Amino acid sequence: MKKKKLRTAIYPGSFDPITNGHLDVIKRACKIFDNVVIAVSVNVSKNPLFSLEERVKFISVATSNLSGIKIDVLDGLLVEFAKKISAQAVIRGLRAVSDFEYEFQMALMNRKLYPGLEVIFFMPSNKYAFLSSSLIKEVASLGGSVKEFVPPIVEEALLMKFRKEGDTNYYI
Amino acid sequence: MKKKKLRTAIYPGSFDPITNGHLDVIKRACKIFDNVVIAVSVNVSKNPLFSLEERVKFISVATSNLSGIKIDVLDGLLVEFAKKISAQAVIRGLRAVSDFEYEFQMALMNRKLYPGLEVIFFMPSNKYAFLSSSLIKEVASLGGSVKEFVPPIVEEALLMKFRKEGDTNYYI
Amino acid sequence: MKKKKLRTAIYPGSFDPITNGHLDVIKRACKIFDNVVIAVSVNVSKNPLFSLEERVKFISVATSNLSGIKIDVLDGLLVEFAKKISAQAVIRGLRAVSDFEYEFQMALMNRKLYPGLEVIFFMPSNKYAFLSSSLIKEVASLGGSVKEFVPPIVEEALLMKFRKEGDTNYYI
Amino acid sequence: MKKKKLRTAIYPGSFDPITNGHLDVIKRACKIFDNVVIAVSVNVSKNPLFSLEERVKFISVATSNLSGIKIDVLDGLLVEFAKKISAQAVIRGLRAVSDFEYEFQMALMNRKLYPGLEVIFFMPSNKYAFLSSSLIKEVASLGGSVKEFVPPIVEEALLMKFRKEGDTNYYI
Amino acid sequence: MKKKKLRTAIYPGSFDPITNGHLDVIKRACKIFDNVVIAVSVNVSKNPLFSLEERVKFISVATSNLSGIKIDVLDGLLVEFAKKISAQAVIRGLRAVSDFEYEFQMALMNRKLYPGLEVIFFMPSNKYAFLSSSLIKEVASLGGSVKEFVPPIVEEALLMKFRKEGDTNYYI
Amino acid sequence: MKKKKLRTAIYPGSFDPITNGHLDVIKRACKIFDNVVIAVSVNVSKNPLFSLEERVKFISVATSNLSGIKIDVLDGLLVEFAKKISAQAVIRGLRAVSDFEYEFQMALMNRKLYPGLEVIFFMPSNKYAFLSSSLIKEVASLGGSVKEFVPPIVEEALLMKFRKEGDTNYYI
Repeated sequence: MKKKKLRTAIYPGSFDPITNGHLDVIKRACKIFDNVVIAVSVNVSKNPLFSLEERVKFISVATSNLSGIKIDVLDGLLVEFAKKISAQAVIRGLRAVSDFEYEFQMALMNRKLYPGLEVIFFMPSNKYAFLSSSLIKEVASLGGSVKEFVPPIVEEALLMKFRKEGDTNYYI
Repeated sequence: MKKKKLRTAIYPGSFDPITNGHLDVIKRACKIFDNVVIAVSVNVSKNPLFSLEERVKFISVATSNLSGIKIDVLDGLLVEFAKKISAQAVIRGLRAVSDFEYEFQMALMNRKLYPGLEVIFFMPSNKYAFLSSSLIKEVASLGGSVKEFVPPIVEEALLMKFRKEGDTNYYI
Repeated sequence: MKKKKLRTAIYPGSFDPITNGHLDVIKRACKIFDNVVIAVSVNVSKNPLFSLEERVKFISVATSNLSGIKIDVLDGLLVEFAKKISAQAVIRGLRAVSDFEYEFQMALMNRKLYPGLEVIFFMPSNKYAFLSSSLIKEVASLGGSVKEFVPPIVEEALLMKFRKEGDTNYYI
Repeated sequence: MKKKKLRTAIYPGSFDPITNGHLDVIKRACKIFDNVVIAVSVNVSKNPLFSLEERVKFISVATSNLSGIKIDVLDGLLVEFAKKISAQAVIRGLRAVSDFEYEFQMALMNRKLYPGLEVIFFMPSNKYAFLSSSLIKEVASLGGSVKEFVPPIVEEALLMKFRKEGDTNYYI
Repeated sequence: MKKKKLRTAIYPGSFDPITNGHLDVIKRACKIFDNVVIAVSVNVSKNPLFSLEERVKFISVATSNLSGIKIDVLDGLLVEFAKKISAQAVIRGLRAVSDFEYEFQMALMNRKLYPGLEVIFFMPSNKYAFLSSSLIKEVASLGGSVKEFVPPIVEEALLMKFRKEGDTNYYI
Repeated sequence: MKKKKLRTAIYPGSFDPITNGHLDVIKRACKIFDNVVIAVSVNVSKNPLFSLEERVKFISVATSNLSGIKIDVLDGLLVEFAKKISAQAVIRGLRAVSDFEYEFQMALMNRKLYPGLEVIFFMPSNKYAFLSSSLIKEVASLGGSVKEFVPPIVEEALLMKFRKEGDTNYYI
């Protein structure tokens, strides 16, 4: 009998914070891969709203009912991380044409740096097509409800962040 | 006789500053709607060149010959503002593919937050297809003439802003 | 008291056949315009599946519960038709980037031919974003259910068309 | 010990004829899936250059050195075929923005018809980004060499097809 | 004194018929190149409205006041033609995103077939951004005026073509 | 004998730092133009990684084996610079749809400001399609090798910049 080797995929991102769109992609990836490693970026060029610890914790709580998930921190090149954990693939969600171009540029660079790593794209559910972490933060900062778009722990954290009157320094 | 109810549309933006492209969209919207409320954003993520008061004043002067126009300040969620003033629609100008994707993301989010609000898109005149407030500011800051692209009051204000030798702190 | 003039919009297309995506756009347009004239094209470059009479009938049945709708036949230039019925606007649904470019090309040409006619774009519900008449016909011709995507009269007509064994000459 | 279930993906297309770009996608998919079923469409809307038998034979020869490949004929709905062979995923190559929109439309429709089927996208090697079966046929019909772009059996078949003087009825 | 070698560019197309947009690109190219060779395709996949002779004649008349123009017929691979006439470049007009993708695919294939041939892109005047030969034919076939969009000889020929009552076999 | 006038093109950019993709475009332009003036922007909106002097030096070393190249500094409007040096054209590389839209906006503005200046687009080699200065800097800052993507002098400078432990203030 041919022994199957484990298939591992990395899902990298800043997850500032994780949304239901991210979770949708993660669930789809779990159907194809044995392990999905969620790799949370340290080096985000713009100031994150949530600390690395908070971002990791939100993902941990939101994915606690899924099996085959691991969460790790990404503080160097993605391709080095992939080699270290012997991942065969990187997974990304594609929502729109603008995603597409950016994702292709990154995928081509990563393929150049490490040809053995496959980048594959999932299509999130149409009902999350418009979601992004930054849009979620904008809506929450203006007092809008984001209940439908993020896991409960993130909704609560956003309410806490933006509850204090005048705490609008995130945008100004 | 069937009584027509007033049709009100909101045209939101940062208008930093208003351009002839914005004015073109406003005039087109006036042909379809009884009232067009220009809603000037307070919360702009990047530092505006002009203050809220300046931006409102420029719009006020530039639209003084149009009827059915109101100018208001937007400092919360667009959908809440729409409910408050009983607007049926939000209007947006579409110039390019990149506009399209951003606008669709925002429109889908707004529809989720308030399904009763319609977002409709106008196509500005082809001769303004390349205009944007930020491009106008870049040209003016480098000493180029923007006479053709903005109302006279804005041209004058841009000249004043960038006249002082070395006042290039907007870009650095 | 200012007397409101009637606002009339044209919704042109081949409607071969009308889908729930078209109906979604029509309902949105009815919220803004007093009259919406659905103009069914005679001159379709590719062989239509349904005759002009069938296409008109499907629209008629599918919109029977809406007020302010008229159905007409378009067998010449859209701009001439618009002048004849004194329409202020043409409405179009925008679903995707590829729509966008085609629609802009047509709108710019129409604006050139008749500057007084405004083209405005509606965004159909996200759940119809993937629908098109030709995709519907392809699915139906292969025996798939299109119940969710078209009005009942169209579903029935498609079933009739494709029921006869071997009647696949539409695609070959 | 957790028993791994076999992962099966379908790669559908008309393959008229198979190109090195298709083969590149197939090889990438073999790294992720246990079985890749190449499903050759019968119902192609435009006249194919090669018969179904020829197209299947070319694929068979070109993939003879790969393991885990099966070739089948697709003459109905893709989702029905997927159910019949218990496939978890459909794979598609994405090369350009225009691919992206068409693929998304199809994927959304297929998800609607069968939510259990995942569509995942691979990025072919950059050196095949410009390849398509129709471009290959155009170059070959004009006497250009397509040696680099297709497997040897296809190159030979194209030479045969277009060798006869005046046999240009494919394009006219 | 360094002797300048002549710079020759090819402008290929079906020109069915030539439009003012084509002429705009030709004039721009004449500012950069010593010779511009307009290469009229024989092998057009769809039935042309005008014969090769008519298409060549229209170009000839429309460019009679320009110097450095030659008109030739293209009935094989573009790259072979380029080698034969020692052209350094192919020129193309870019109007829209959809142009862009198609043009890039063709340019990459041509570069593969003949690396020494440069493909360079010009941007036609914004006022011709919406023009295409097929749109012109559609407007003319429906009785619209195309005076602004084509040279006089083409306008006249289109009037002749579509004057005869019922002569709509171009579209059906 | 007709005397050929010199053809001069400007290649503007921030070149922070110059990449092999830039060099590819420069070499292509040298085949069409007598002189190519590389114009290095002073006014870059975001903090450059390298000083103007460094950026100019890198270009100077990297292009030392090419003839017909001049390097200059651009600290005002591009169109004024073009007038001053009597350039007929601006050259730009086009890699992707997002490039396309930005470049068209800039080109349309420049054409408005100075109609005599032609903007022409080159397509860099497919193997550089994914390169950008900012991606290069990101990879280098994370310790990745950029040897294949930049000239040796730039590779060395990037190594120096990012060698010092903890010197990550470029991104934070």
